[in-house]
Amino acid sequence: SKTYKIAVLAGDGIGPEVTKESVKILKVIGETFQYKFQFDYGSVGAEAIYQTGNPLPDETLALCKNSDAVLFGAIGDPAFDNNPDAKVRPEQGLLKLRKELGLFANIRPIKTYASLIKKSPLKKEIVDGTDIQIYRELISGIYFGEKFTDENGEYAYDLCKYSREEIIGITHLAFQDAQKRKKKLTLIDKANVLDTSRLWRKIVKEIAVEYPDVALDFMFVDNAAMQMILNPKQFDVILTENMFGDIISDEASVIGGSIGLLPSASIGEDNGLFEPIHGSYPQAKGKGIANPIASILSAAMLLDYLELDQAADKLRKSVEHAIESKFVTIDLNAEQHYTTSEVGDFIADYI
Amino acid sequence: SKTYKIAVLAGDGIGPEVTKESVKILKVIGETFQYKFQFDYGSVGAEAIYQTGNPLPDETLALCKNSDAVLFGAIGDPAFDNNPDAKVRPEQGLLKLRKELGLFANIRPIKTYASLIKKSPLKKEIVDGTDIQIYRELISGIYFGEKFTDENGEYAYDLCKYSREEIIGITHLAFQDAQKRKKKLTLIDKANVLDTSRLWRKIVKEIAVEYPDVALDFMFVDNAAMQMILNPKQFDVILTENMFGDIISDEASVIGGSIGLLPSASIGEDNGLFEPIHGSYPQAKGKGIANPIASILSAAMLLDYLELDQAADKLRKSVEHAIESKFVTIDLNAEQHYTTSEVGDFIADYI
Ligand SMILES: CC(C)[C@H](C(=O)O)[C@@H](O)C(=O)O
Ligand SMILES: CC(C)[C@H](C(=O)O)[C@@H](O)C(=O)O
Repeated sequence: SKTYKIAVLAGDGIGPEVTKESVKILKVIGETFQYKFQFDYGSVGAEAIYQTGNPLPDETLALCKNSDAVLFGAIGDPAFDNNPDAKVRPEQGLLKLRKELGLFANIRPIKTYASLIKKSPLKKEIVDGTDIQIYRELISGIYFGEKFTDENGEYAYDLCKYSREEIIGITHLAFQDAQKRKKKLTLIDKANVLDTSRLWRKIVKEIAVEYPDVALDFMFVDNAAMQMILNPKQFDVILTENMFGDIISDEASVIGGSIGLLPSASIGEDNGLFEPIHGSYPQAKGKGIANPIASILSAAMLLDYLELDQAADKLRKSVEHAIESKFVTIDLNAEQHYTTSEVGDFIADYI
Repeated sequence: SKTYKIAVLAGDGIGPEVTKESVKILKVIGETFQYKFQFDYGSVGAEAIYQTGNPLPDETLALCKNSDAVLFGAIGDPAFDNNPDAKVRPEQGLLKLRKELGLFANIRPIKTYASLIKKSPLKKEIVDGTDIQIYRELISGIYFGEKFTDENGEYAYDLCKYSREEIIGITHLAFQDAQKRKKKLTLIDKANVLDTSRLWRKIVKEIAVEYPDVALDFMFVDNAAMQMILNPKQFDVILTENMFGDIISDEASVIGGSIGLLPSASIGEDNGLFEPIHGSYPQAKGKGIANPIASILSAAMLLDYLELDQAADKLRKSVEHAIESKFVTIDLNAEQHYTTSEVGDFIADYI
């Protein structure tokens, strides 16, 4: 049977601690379901800069290109955040990796857990039952357009550009997902101001004809930023460009009450990268308090991607069991809580 | 004594109804405080397109340029929203007016009212006491950079650009306001990705030296979209570029429980435009249910701008009295409510 090669890029801050739990659990999954996983480790982010001067060393990139999937921890380091003049930055490693692997679709599920609703800053009746799937375009737009700053630092620009090819792939993925869900797709844009947004509308409308069972609507990004809080349950699948997706998906992450629960998948033609949406959270590093669930649910999305559906299902059920049993880290229960690895062990044991 | 020339651009949807109440109240203010106001009316938006084919007719622009301040209603019409291919659009009228009048700073106060907190989608303990002043740059950035769509509609771009001159004016205004408030200024940007954001950081840091009593911090826009909901009370003055300001200020508008309360001021070298942040709300047009308070508080910001401080103060107190007396429209009290003009009369009578 096939050996699945998984590149593990644990990165900075709490990345290594939470990723360790996911690897532990994937190993148990492998034994239980008789899958062969091979784990190969690479460095990325600030950690890689300190070691090699490069946030994405060549060996790491080669390792990822050779893998079936990438399990990613987190990047970011206060030494760079507080120094905007730094020429080499941890984030560049992640951005370059996304581009090199062609990971055009970033998928972020936003869900609530009944037992955690009280942690949400929003009222229960507003958020209870929210179930959104966000599709963010990840390797084009203003992130990757031409950039310029003049010598004297008096003038700068960033170009936001899109072509048809950069829009169609993710649009099909989003429609296909909508067909399996509540059959509603909302394109978030700023078509009353931007040419790129009007291009998105035009192409998404054309593609919609192939998915007549899915209801398509459009929402301006400013209105969407309001609607996400006023009535998140109106959304099913959201499709949007890179920068709007960055903002709207982080905003949506507050709904469930803990960012420590939220996974993401970044999908390309022949690779996928799976990472928690939380950052490197350097203040928590090494304390054993980081919530491993976002990383573990990212591993579940990795199993989906490898079409190991049974295992993905089992893993999600085990996570739900931990949450319902209140076997959780301090962010979810201040009174009684467990360490990062205790939570990982609990979930592994249940599998 | 001086005659203040006020251009009134009521616009579309509920714009005329709410603006009428503001004009009524400004007339009472004029009588009470012995100020001379002259009101001149111009057309703008969809209404102007229907009449003249132009969302900002030359006469309207001339009227505004000749005025001391512009009282603006709302623009937008479903006939255009549902037709992204329309070449002439109501929004163009507003964007052109902002540019022509040089209104570089859009100021949006976000406050809560004790008696209305229960209308907020957020929990009381999160929002109670929020008091934020948002400074959004309004006539540069991706809104006004070069735009392009190829003939076949396969490719498009929007250029986001900033120069030092476009950043310094609003930055000084924001720091000066922070000095009168809690002495905290947060610049929202995406300096880990965008050259324009790094330019903003550099210039804002330079200017900060002139305001040593104000604490300056920086926040990435994705994180800010989370923090605005998790803990809005951490913010005092926010400064940001055009597109991020559009998104973050609309998001922040949910905090108080009704967008029908929120005013804005757009300030330039020698003119100011004052408008509610809500849109044209066409479904409510002509029903007498629109909340006039956002427009009336915009008129209070107009009085601030004309340095008629006593009158501005009196007007705000009258609005607070109406809110506390629950003499409000249906959006604020479903059980007992009054019409748009009844609320306007109540506030006018109190002055
Ligand atoms: C670290 C940063 C460059 C990145 C982004 O903006 O894409 C992050 O915010 C994310 O959403 O994964
Ligand atoms: C109508 C639209 C062009 C406008 C903007 O994006 O600036 C509006 O959303 C606003 O914030 O005033």
